[in-house]
Amino acid sequence: MTQLAKLTPIAELIHRALGAEQFAQSASLFLRLRPADRADVFEILDDEDQTQLLRHLDIPTTADLFDELEDQETAEAAEFISLERLGDVLDEMDPDEAADLLGDLSPEKAELALTEMDEPEDVLPLLSYSDETAGGRMTTAYLCLHPQTTTAEAIEYLRAADPDIDVPYYLFVADESEHLVGVLGLRELVIADPHTTIDSVMDQDAIYVPAVADQEEAARMMTHYDLSVLPVLDEHKHLVGVITHDDILDVIEDEATEDIYRLASVADTDLEPESAVREQLKGRLPWLLLNTVTALFAAWIISIFEDLFVQVAVLAFFQSVVAGQGGSAASQNVAMIVRAIALGKIEPKRVWAILLRQLWVGLLQGIIIGVIIGLGVGIWQGNPYLGMVLGLALIGNMLVAGIVGTLLPLAFQSIGQDPAMTSSVLVTAATDALGFLIFLSLAKMFLPLIIRYLPY
Amino acid sequence: MTQLAKLTPIAELIHRALGAEQFAQSASLFLRLRPADRADVFEILDDEDQTQLLRHLDIPTTADLFDELEDQETAEAAEFISLERLGDVLDEMDPDEAADLLGDLSPEKAELALTEMDEPEDVLPLLSYSDETAGGRMTTAYLCLHPQTTTAEAIEYLRAADPDIDVPYYLFVADESEHLVGVLGLRELVIADPHTTIDSVMDQDAIYVPAVADQEEAARMMTHYDLSVLPVLDEHKHLVGVITHDDILDVIEDEATEDIYRLASVADTDLEPESAVREQLKGRLPWLLLNTVTALFAAWIISIFEDLFVQVAVLAFFQSVVAGQGGSAASQNVAMIVRAIALGKIEPKRVWAILLRQLWVGLLQGIIIGVIIGLGVGIWQGNPYLGMVLGLALIGNMLVAGIVGTLLPLAFQSIGQDPAMTSSVLVTAATDALGFLIFLSLAKMFLPLIIRYLPY
Repeated sequence: MTQLAKLTPIAELIHRALGAEQFAQSASLFLRLRPADRADVFEILDDEDQTQLLRHLDIPTTADLFDELEDQETAEAAEFISLERLGDVLDEMDPDEAADLLGDLSPEKAELALTEMDEPEDVLPLLSYSDETAGGRMTTAYLCLHPQTTTAEAIEYLRAADPDIDVPYYLFVADESEHLVGVLGLRELVIADPHTTIDSVMDQDAIYVPAVADQEEAARMMTHYDLSVLPVLDEHKHLVGVITHDDILDVIEDEATEDIYRLASVADTDLEPESAVREQLKGRLPWLLLNTVTALFAAWIISIFEDLFVQVAVLAFFQSVVAGQGGSAASQNVAMIVRAIALGKIEPKRVWAILLRQLWVGLLQGIIIGVIIGLGVGIWQGNPYLGMVLGLALIGNMLVAGIVGTLLPLAFQSIGQDPAMTSSVLVTAATDALGFLIFLSLAKMFLPLIIRYLPY
Repeated sequence: MTQLAKLTPIAELIHRALGAEQFAQSASLFLRLRPADRADVFEILDDEDQTQLLRHLDIPTTADLFDELEDQETAEAAEFISLERLGDVLDEMDPDEAADLLGDLSPEKAELALTEMDEPEDVLPLLSYSDETAGGRMTTAYLCLHPQTTTAEAIEYLRAADPDIDVPYYLFVADESEHLVGVLGLRELVIADPHTTIDSVMDQDAIYVPAVADQEEAARMMTHYDLSVLPVLDEHKHLVGVITHDDILDVIEDEATEDIYRLASVADTDLEPESAVREQLKGRLPWLLLNTVTALFAAWIISIFEDLFVQVAVLAFFQSVVAGQGGSAASQNVAMIVRAIALGKIEPKRVWAILLRQLWVGLLQGIIIGVIIGLGVGIWQGNPYLGMVLGLALIGNMLVAGIVGTLLPLAFQSIGQDPAMTSSVLVTAATDALGFLIFLSLAKMFLPLIIRYLPY
């Protein structure tokens, strides 16, 4: 927010320069920014300004900009430039970003753009992996050497390499058959004897990830082992790419967004507050429709007890208190379980211990909340049995919350579904329906006693 | 989970070796693991095994282990070794981890441990910054050179430096008065002419963060500019430390946990499913107690309409449907706004545009859900006016959800509070209370018409 606020005046200046057709000046204002800030300023500009500005940037600057923009923005900006120019820009872009862009274009346009590229060979292998895999996150712009290279030769090689290389602080070592045999950090290279071969100084026990592995697995390995680069191998153990730490930051942020959205019943994780209304309805309505089914089911459960309300209207005040407290407690449980799963903190054999602990917490929370509300309402309504029924129902529903909130995400996980999909809607369905059922059943059981204290 | 499952058998082997008093064998099994895996195995062992194992590890291995363990685990493990040994271990630990450990010990114990250290000067400056700031996250184990050093001298310096240095791929350049004047990547160092001075090849426009800045700001800068290291300056612009990319991964994961927990009304972000019951109650009950207040307020609103239920018991079935749908839609809104704020995607001047968009989405969701439920219930109960009232109330409460779910997190943000604190409890309080109010008020207004269609 601060960052965006700082850049808005610069975007304004560029907008004015473009409006006055001072194209050189607008481009030079733009170039004075760091690449990441250029992307933010570019996103603030409207379509017309973007088109004008792109016409007056050179190919390398455009490529840097496209590398930095978010995927969707890059695809939109690509529409503003000619196909021939797009080919040149793709050649200059980071291979992984270029592959993402090609994946976001229409298949026809992507094919045409590929034919316009001079060096499509860096990008082509990346296109075969889906976005959410290690292969989809990796880059091919790394340096790979033979194990018998001397360290002096390696330094020469480094000197000759493209200065824009994605992975500048590590060299990868592969044998004749392209099998990864080691990784060498630049520090070890620099301090080694210049005549030694790199296989004697490299780390021979490099951690790697299969290209088809989920990006989350790659992220977890890099976090766990504090890696700044992670080699990616194909099914023949050939080195095919490298994932860098900044990609992993994106993965972790994406996964967090996914968990937060799913827990809040938002199905489309690309949604933003200003996304098109149509997109928002597509991403949000399905869960509300499911909620409709479960809410009407809960209403049907209440309807079984219709007679009760005619006799004791006051019950209608408090049924939602039971359901609501259960829902809140269950959300707490789900959040803790989902997060523990995401951070790899749950040992399968601890599941029953966890359930037991959560039941215990549920029981205690139920007793505390139940006593407070039971006493409060008993006094407010001058009806001790109503208070007692309410208190008991709260204890019961808190136990339901403990069970459902713990087991539902674990069950989703065990059948290979995202535990965050449990979401508030499903868990609340259980605590609502069972909360009403427990409260109204208890009320029915104690009806003669409750009625005895009614004022009418 | 997979990682933990893989390590459990090794922990079992070590447990057995310790039980049979084969200490050398247990230590050697332990040493064969990578440091990050050692931490996981260590955490699986019980207290007795941990104490035994620590007795048979050397100082550097213990220091590596303490670097890798989670903060709380490190503090617990530190209780198992003598104070003298702890001083030696602290000397060998990464300065930032050593500072964290000292902060987690009791003040008396921390002071005693400091006096046992040979080189407390690396750690002391870190102790003055609180955990959640850039200063609290930084390390002092980096290399800093004078601008007039030649690149050949810099390489010699690198060769002589501690091989365990935290920041091995960057050199920092500071002048006589310790002001940061540049940063030099090892790649630029390696490929530069050996006789040139480093000020001519360094990046003179290094991005930095103030030591007192929030760790989240440091994380945002590193993500935004794709940095793997970020220099930290004190109030005199002196270089005092460096934050590395792996620390930022931790910050981002911590912040995501915080958001997820707060949105689900869990106040203590350190809670895990198996945390002590006492801790769980401390971290979870306060929100449920607040929920008690708001739920009883909502019950009081319903109680205003007591007469209605006596006449039309059926109303009691559906009031929760209105409240529940509003609550779900509001949670969707809150999640989107909180995430957009966390990722720095909200421009202050777009707030009204966002609110308008969310009202529009709320209206459309209200109409769709309202028509479905209104028609369904109208037919189910054979009561068109009940269906109409329900449909209108749903539209109204969806608009409430759009307003509250959008403005409440933005308001929290603008007064410097965490927008995720809005949490389900507060937002649901609004959609519950207003949902009941809207539905029952409409029902009262149309009461004669609804009654006309009642079966009794």
